[in-house]
Amino acid sequence: MPKVSEEHREARRRQILDAAWVCFARNGFHKTSMPDVFAEAGLSAGAVYRYFPGKEALITAIAETSMRQLVEILDAHLRAPDLPPPEELLPELMEDLTALGGSAPAPMAPQVWSEMMRDPRIAGAVAGTLGDIQQRLAEMCRRYQAAGVLAPGLDPGDTARVLVALIQGWIIQWNTMGLAAHQQITAGVRGLLTRAPRSATHG
Amino acid sequence: MPKVSEEHREARRRQILDAAWVCFARNGFHKTSMPDVFAEAGLSAGAVYRYFPGKEALITAIAETSMRQLVEILDAHLRAPDLPPPEELLPELMEDLTALGGSAPAPMAPQVWSEMMRDPRIAGAVAGTLGDIQQRLAEMCRRYQAAGVLAPGLDPGDTARVLVALIQGWIIQWNTMGLAAHQQITAGVRGLLTRAPRSATHG
Repeated sequence: MPKVSEEHREARRRQILDAAWVCFARNGFHKTSMPDVFAEAGLSAGAVYRYFPGKEALITAIAETSMRQLVEILDAHLRAPDLPPPEELLPELMEDLTALGGSAPAPMAPQVWSEMMRDPRIAGAVAGTLGDIQQRLAEMCRRYQAAGVLAPGLDPGDTARVLVALIQGWIIQWNTMGLAAHQQITAGVRGLLTRAPRSATHG
Repeated sequence: MPKVSEEHREARRRQILDAAWVCFARNGFHKTSMPDVFAEAGLSAGAVYRYFPGKEALITAIAETSMRQLVEILDAHLRAPDLPPPEELLPELMEDLTALGGSAPAPMAPQVWSEMMRDPRIAGAVAGTLGDIQQRLAEMCRRYQAAGVLAPGLDPGDTARVLVALIQGWIIQWNTMGLAAHQQITAGVRGLLTRAPRSATHG
């Protein structure tokens, strides 16, 4: 396929997803109709359906895109010479996610999680990317263990799953309770994670 | 008011909430109409509207009831002679929540969080009960500190907020990814929280 055409396809796909994002953020997934998305994107029904057969495909693609952005954020940290200290990792990830747009991180995520519960196809479609996120976090745990700032006996996969759950709850807290909740969780995480090496040194 | 009448009111209110729960679980909040709730409850529109003016009032009451059940679970732990070890507290709370019904804890919660983001009145209505949950978890942190199994320098309020976020993410993981995710988080939390006292003793 010629390069211009692929670029065009990707730009068109992006244009539709951006329009769907605006609609879902404004009215929620269920109160948004496909014609709302056509209007917001300024495209015909046929032009949109060529890329996405329905709302489920749109929310799945939005989830996949957002989670892929988190994978890229994690990869950027893994490529850097050093990871942030463990107690700064999650606060930095939350700030990185928020920098992607909006006043709180991943504002579409709670709607995605609700839909995943009701439509296992969405859960199935994002399972691979969720696995990529967990794999990167597990790799970070291994590096922290190698650096002696995380207990060597911890299972990196289990620990990564706890971090994913904490990130998810943090997203909910920040989106539903505001910036003060984020700041309190940040302080709490710093307290919990900076404590361990100190107790090993001074305890 | 006579006692029988109050009991009747409470039973009727419970009957409507149970019907709304069934409808929301089956079709989701947005695809449920008030007539669906009337039909499920076997009550007239007037009988339901006397208690709940609309769907937002129903989801708020369901959220409030579920969170109140968590407060009662926490109070039961606080009344017991001893708290579970820190690494067993959250796994036990998750099992307690699941025992209230369903195959995973708080299956309505992700829908509630989505709605809280779009309707600040819901967030406002449950803020008091959320504060009660955090206050109980902070009290548990203080007891753990007094027992020497949690670092004395940690702020109980900040730590409680982290626990709330972790519980929320855990609920999402269990509901969207199944029992295996719950078991992995349980193992991860046990690893992270049993580690600290050991490092203080043997480190």
